[in-house]
Amino acid sequence: MSSPIRPVPLEKAYRLINHGPTALISARYGGETDVMAAAWVCALDFDPPKLMVVLDKSVYTRALVEDAGTFVVQVPVASQAELVHAVGSISLGDDPQKLARTGVELVALDGDLPFVAGCSAWLACRLVPEPHNQSRYDLFIAEVTGAWADERVFRDGHWQFETADPALRSLHYVAGGHFYAIGEAIEVPEIPG
Amino acid sequence: MSSPIRPVPLEKAYRLINHGPTALISARYGGETDVMAAAWVCALDFDPPKLMVVLDKSVYTRALVEDAGTFVVQVPVASQAELVHAVGSISLGDDPQKLARTGVELVALDGDLPFVAGCSAWLACRLVPEPHNQSRYDLFIAEVTGAWADERVFRDGHWQFETADPALRSLHYVAGGHFYAIGEAIEVPEIPG
Repeated sequence: MSSPIRPVPLEKAYRLINHGPTALISARYGGETDVMAAAWVCALDFDPPKLMVVLDKSVYTRALVEDAGTFVVQVPVASQAELVHAVGSISLGDDPQKLARTGVELVALDGDLPFVAGCSAWLACRLVPEPHNQSRYDLFIAEVTGAWADERVFRDGHWQFETADPALRSLHYVAGGHFYAIGEAIEVPEIPG
Repeated sequence: MSSPIRPVPLEKAYRLINHGPTALISARYGGETDVMAAAWVCALDFDPPKLMVVLDKSVYTRALVEDAGTFVVQVPVASQAELVHAVGSISLGDDPQKLARTGVELVALDGDLPFVAGCSAWLACRLVPEPHNQSRYDLFIAEVTGAWADERVFRDGHWQFETADPALRSLHYVAGGHFYAIGEAIEVPEIPG
């Protein structure tokens, strides 16, 4: 089967996270690769696209992001809920076999960055250093340098949740083991200018 | 009918926005009250609870937030999709009758802050001044000083979308007039520590 992964124009990249999905953050540095879950991810600008993510000082992935200066934000799908919860609950610092144990598989889309297989969308990010935000708020700002999506669920610049396999819906985390999948489409008329 | 609005403990306030809903931002200063839509809202800390929101320099509400130093983040519901799109499309600067025209009704929950009626959750916020973030990124950080929710859809510290009226589901904005409502619950087992 050919890959359904297609590039997304950078000016549409914000749409991959605009609806507030819980994300996976992955980073690689010095031979180590980690993947974590992050509900606190948010778009910050359209052009050039920027986003922000909260990385607590206790998470192992944070040091890899700081050292590499690059990371990936990906949008996991409903069928990955257990994987998302697992990578959010286990630290690479405690278990060097974390990725194997949690079933994470990686794919190559752009250089040496680690992209998590089976997600619906991926944003390659370059850190915009802001030491005050990072130390005081655990807040990391990045420019999006590349974007891709699974065309079965995002194409023509829009999510296609209403017609795609429900297993490809985005996840929206609450707490504990509780998530919601994204639901039904709601369309409202455009407002005359 | 008695009001279904109940206070939410501050340590649970992050859960009101953790699943990435599109929000309404309201502020009041100098006799003016405005309400805008914002998809770029995100939790930032648990205790004390903080959040962040992107307020473009072109939006009228921004000056009210800056001058008042306070604002409200509220979670609108599926049946308010037209209202959300309307307050996000019309500027109070262009139409002083914006709130009446878009059908916004206000309720009092805390002092003089303007809370939008009919939403499912409300977070009273006090700006944490960060001039660099505000001017460079249009990024505003705030501490949450009070939280309330409609107990028909949020109680015992959890959203109850799976059993509540679908009209009370949160909205997740994509672009144009396109939203998704939040969908089905997904529960995964807790990871043994």
